[in-house]
Amino acid sequence: MSLVSSDVAAQLADVGRRFDARNWVLGTSGNFSVVLGRDPLRLAMTRSGIAKGSLTADAIVEIDEDGRPIQPAAGRPSAEAPLHVEIARTRGTEVVLHTHSIWSTVLSERHASAGGVAVADYEMLKGLEGVATHEHREWIPILENDQDMARLAGRVRQLLSDHPSCHAFLLRRHGLYTWGETLPKAVRHVEILEFLLEAVGRMEK
Amino acid sequence: MSLVSSDVAAQLADVGRRFDARNWVLGTSGNFSVVLGRDPLRLAMTRSGIAKGSLTADAIVEIDEDGRPIQPAAGRPSAEAPLHVEIARTRGTEVVLHTHSIWSTVLSERHASAGGVAVADYEMLKGLEGVATHEHREWIPILENDQDMARLAGRVRQLLSDHPSCHAFLLRRHGLYTWGETLPKAVRHVEILEFLLEAVGRMEK
Amino acid sequence: MSLVSSDVAAQLADVGRRFDARNWVLGTSGNFSVVLGRDPLRLAMTRSGIAKGSLTADAIVEIDEDGRPIQPAAGRPSAEAPLHVEIARTRGTEVVLHTHSIWSTVLSERHASAGGVAVADYEMLKGLEGVATHEHREWIPILENDQDMARLAGRVRQLLSDHPSCHAFLLRRHGLYTWGETLPKAVRHVEILEFLLEAVGRMEK
Amino acid sequence: MSLVSSDVAAQLADVGRRFDARNWVLGTSGNFSVVLGRDPLRLAMTRSGIAKGSLTADAIVEIDEDGRPIQPAAGRPSAEAPLHVEIARTRGTEVVLHTHSIWSTVLSERHASAGGVAVADYEMLKGLEGVATHEHREWIPILENDQDMARLAGRVRQLLSDHPSCHAFLLRRHGLYTWGETLPKAVRHVEILEFLLEAVGRMEK
Repeated sequence: MSLVSSDVAAQLADVGRRFDARNWVLGTSGNFSVVLGRDPLRLAMTRSGIAKGSLTADAIVEIDEDGRPIQPAAGRPSAEAPLHVEIARTRGTEVVLHTHSIWSTVLSERHASAGGVAVADYEMLKGLEGVATHEHREWIPILENDQDMARLAGRVRQLLSDHPSCHAFLLRRHGLYTWGETLPKAVRHVEILEFLLEAVGRMEK
Repeated sequence: MSLVSSDVAAQLADVGRRFDARNWVLGTSGNFSVVLGRDPLRLAMTRSGIAKGSLTADAIVEIDEDGRPIQPAAGRPSAEAPLHVEIARTRGTEVVLHTHSIWSTVLSERHASAGGVAVADYEMLKGLEGVATHEHREWIPILENDQDMARLAGRVRQLLSDHPSCHAFLLRRHGLYTWGETLPKAVRHVEILEFLLEAVGRMEK
Repeated sequence: MSLVSSDVAAQLADVGRRFDARNWVLGTSGNFSVVLGRDPLRLAMTRSGIAKGSLTADAIVEIDEDGRPIQPAAGRPSAEAPLHVEIARTRGTEVVLHTHSIWSTVLSERHASAGGVAVADYEMLKGLEGVATHEHREWIPILENDQDMARLAGRVRQLLSDHPSCHAFLLRRHGLYTWGETLPKAVRHVEILEFLLEAVGRMEK
Repeated sequence: MSLVSSDVAAQLADVGRRFDARNWVLGTSGNFSVVLGRDPLRLAMTRSGIAKGSLTADAIVEIDEDGRPIQPAAGRPSAEAPLHVEIARTRGTEVVLHTHSIWSTVLSERHASAGGVAVADYEMLKGLEGVATHEHREWIPILENDQDMARLAGRVRQLLSDHPSCHAFLLRRHGLYTWGETLPKAVRHVEILEFLLEAVGRMEK
């Protein structure tokens, strides 16, 4: 029997519809995960190649601490499962969300040579967990994109260690990763960061 | 028993959905208030940290003339409650709406050194209460953002006194405040001003 | 008894929702009319100060050939009623639609000194009635905005005479007027023209 | 009896609503086709002059291998039927989708003199069938627009032969053509390509 409750699936479907309406998960892009248990680490994760605007319960599979499916017959998780596992483990966070928006893609390229985007002095920054004032400078690191997921997961681990207080990172020409203690908090992070990246992007032009 | 009728809550929920669909209240940004009584001043106000696209009745709390909750157990109002109280008192207006859009954020920064944005000669200006012709110059003052709400409320009071006919103001890198005698009139002001700020912003580039 | 059938009102409500979702009638901007009879000329017209995204039957009033309400108690028509009457009479068209989009506003200003916008060689031009090839140059004249509706109606009459084959015109910093033999055809014109103005606007930058 | 099942019509209607909500098929622009049989070649195709946001079963007609309607009384297929037939035959693909977005229009003009747009190194490229890494360079050829459909179909045939691995092409100042083995795969291609064209377009500015 699946550890993934229909409630979790329904909540992820809501998030998928919300992000899809904003063009943050076009095609079958983006992937979402929720921690189901810690010992051993188990995540519910969106399957590979699934449109996020119409998620159904069978679009969510369980993965283990190596990002492998618990029930391979239920379908293959997103190829980026190891990144979700890495974040869930290193940050001790319950939910990881990855979106592919126009502005995160554009900014991830414009600021690639600097290794990250600095976002400072916006009221919206207060939507990031633990930030209590707009007088905050958030550094959003940018990683080179890579199809070797083991290698990329290693670089994510390093990044999270180098930037212990970051709330998100970008993969170059790829998209945004952020997380939260609960699904609403992680959704809020996506919305805040997508807003800030668009604001910064339009300000720069 | 709450002074906030389910009708007021339902109307604010409609407004929240409308603004959310336009990305003007992403994350848990934005806050709304409605005057419930004048003597003493009482407002219905959105709670802190609530997503405006899915407001329920318990997301609205009552506050007093100092912006404090009447029933603390019902939840904390938005931190910006004192600004709403200030506007409701000084302007004698019934509804105050605050949104966080991309264009109000961008314009609040581009024009910060001028202390405001001038918007002139647009037909849309006629959507502002009391404006009967496009041959009107609306000055939208910009205040520096501040986390000290008592201090910021004082500056709002000064601003409203310095600009007795203004229909709105911007907080720098933060968003738009506007108001109206009724909820539909305040909503109209938000829509008119968001339109004008985007038009001005695109024209400048 | 009203000449405005509930069917006409329902169709205009659909159009209003469609345009509202695209931010072409924010605030209470925009107005729509449909010819009810020709001898004498009678139009169904949206009332003044009504949000177009939630039109109800009582938001539509009948006007005569001078743009005056047939039943004054039913409410005031949009102030721009004389322009609708002028177009319906001069062009012999059944439906007139007026929208206020960002791009029509921006283009109406950028091209004001030229007196119009030329749009040429787009496939989308074929969506304009009678245009059979993209190798077409559509001239969209721009009129100075004016609050004197009698005077503006006179200038509209002159414009329609000077540009006998135009499908639309812009009012400066105000918006788009277009028309059609049926409601779907007029709606198609709005969509085609809004698309073209945005495409031209983004190409110019 | 029609070969077009109500299921196919319902699925195309879903796609139409989805693309309409994103402004990719404004007016009556865009057209969709699905192969019904191969020997002889038969396609279900959207009728000419139909709004794609509200497709009904009678908005889909059957066409033969020359793009002519099987049952002329059922209505005229889109004028671009011969292009769909050409793609379905040459590529052996089951579904052809054509959209008219702002960004495909803008890019088709900006890159016309180069004969195509190169899109490289984006993660989103993996959404194109057979592409397994972002380290891919997709060449999207651009054809001059033409109202002579036989001639244009010939140039499409040549283009597909010259670019055997391309997933799409643009018609200049007109829009995007792409295809897929199934309707969901073709829809995914539209979404991926519209995303990439917008990203490239915003990056260039």
